[in-house]
Amino acid sequence: MMQLHTLTIVGVGLIGGSIGLAAKQRGLAQRVVGVGRDASRLRQAIACGAIDEGTSDLCQASAEADLMIFCTPVNRIAEQVLQAMPHCKPDAILTDAGSVKGPIVADIEASLSGEVRFLGGHPLAGSEKKGVEHANAELFTDRVTILTSTDRTAPSAVQGVRAFWQALGSRVHVMPPSDHDRALAMTSHLPHLIASALAGVLDDRWHAFAATGFRDTTRIAAGDPDVWTPIFAQNRDALLASLTAFETRLRSFREAITNNQTAQIDSLLFNGKKVRDALGS
Amino acid sequence: MMQLHTLTIVGVGLIGGSIGLAAKQRGLAQRVVGVGRDASRLRQAIACGAIDEGTSDLCQASAEADLMIFCTPVNRIAEQVLQAMPHCKPDAILTDAGSVKGPIVADIEASLSGEVRFLGGHPLAGSEKKGVEHANAELFTDRVTILTSTDRTAPSAVQGVRAFWQALGSRVHVMPPSDHDRALAMTSHLPHLIASALAGVLDDRWHAFAATGFRDTTRIAAGDPDVWTPIFAQNRDALLASLTAFETRLRSFREAITNNQTAQIDSLLFNGKKVRDALGS
Repeated sequence: MMQLHTLTIVGVGLIGGSIGLAAKQRGLAQRVVGVGRDASRLRQAIACGAIDEGTSDLCQASAEADLMIFCTPVNRIAEQVLQAMPHCKPDAILTDAGSVKGPIVADIEASLSGEVRFLGGHPLAGSEKKGVEHANAELFTDRVTILTSTDRTAPSAVQGVRAFWQALGSRVHVMPPSDHDRALAMTSHLPHLIASALAGVLDDRWHAFAATGFRDTTRIAAGDPDVWTPIFAQNRDALLASLTAFETRLRSFREAITNNQTAQIDSLLFNGKKVRDALGS
Repeated sequence: MMQLHTLTIVGVGLIGGSIGLAAKQRGLAQRVVGVGRDASRLRQAIACGAIDEGTSDLCQASAEADLMIFCTPVNRIAEQVLQAMPHCKPDAILTDAGSVKGPIVADIEASLSGEVRFLGGHPLAGSEKKGVEHANAELFTDRVTILTSTDRTAPSAVQGVRAFWQALGSRVHVMPPSDHDRALAMTSHLPHLIASALAGVLDDRWHAFAATGFRDTTRIAAGDPDVWTPIFAQNRDALLASLTAFETRLRSFREAITNNQTAQIDSLLFNGKKVRDALGS
């Protein structure tokens, strides 16, 4: 069982707050420090038990950290990691929880030499909710966390971060950043785009007739655009490739419906059902 | 409070079974008769309290009915209503629970003269589950039921069917069949098509990374193709028009992502979030 002296969480929202709560409840760290710009939100994080202390001073917090986890929007992570790194202890490990990995890992590795003690991470857990007030110590239990290593990643960083997520109850997969980004483009970023596009074309007159099917299909469209716009921008190529595959399937539906090819409609629907049934509830 | 002598339900699956259960629990009918081809399923419906008696003889069942509700797939409803009608008592009311209304109502009215005692209906409740074993007496409580009247619909049919659905706890809206079909193309049929298309393009390798967002967005793809293929075929024009609006929105996303227009991505995502937030959970 791992025990850290100081766990430092940069960005204490839903994900960062849940990591803090879970680590404290499981006794994984003697001390959990939250880093953020908004003092009132840090006080709120202390009040709900997600962190022990809060600070806005990233450099000072870095100097004391054994494990640092960056839970800020994906367009800020690389810059913050590179800002923190020179202040860290030589054996400190740094990781993140961002939904895109390629550009973050590439930016960080391009600015450093030799073995890198930063390891990209992404817990596949979340919610359309935001804020530490929705933090939940069981958010990662029985969920998948992806870690992305490269030929420059320090093996001890992989070991340490893997052990940390496993201790939070996660199933850990390790893969290259580009594999993560292709997979998540399809399993997360494209669904978000689709949900948002569908919600966006609903006519006001028809709100009353949007029942559970519409609500399920569009639920994630309630997510925070401040989080999702940078994800779409950073994972552009993989997201566009997934969108192309989806649009091709839409054209197959359109053709079958236009031409009254009911056997073809049936076959497309069976194909989707087979995949969805395999996923379980 | 209405009380029918004989309520006759043709097609005792999830919807028909739930109507039977709800009507019996609320004392709306002295006797509930189920009509179906499969004797074992009718026995199952009796066993779970959804109907009192079952028969495969539609004509005989029609002769005894005060209110008949057709809960069969949309491509069979018009034919069955026309088969039943000549056997019905002169003051019997007929309605259905199909997800498409225009072609059903048009086919029925084209084959009859004068005032018509059939009224199109559609409770906006359901599930990706099927079968009477999932029937639920509260399925319609606080849900919307749409009734479609035309200039040929008997006013007493509108009154009777409205009172019935209100007694099951539904909020009733009355509108022309074409309005129903346009609204439902967007709120139900297009989401089903999208969910199915998205599930269908998920690569096998990535199943493990399909978390709650993907699962919510594709949940309805598990629905029965035997139900959905006829819906897509019967509501072709309205569904294709909704699909066009959705594809146009996808192109806006593609253009903004391709050109790194983050303000435009943000604006599209905010638009979707605003609509989804307005719907509530």
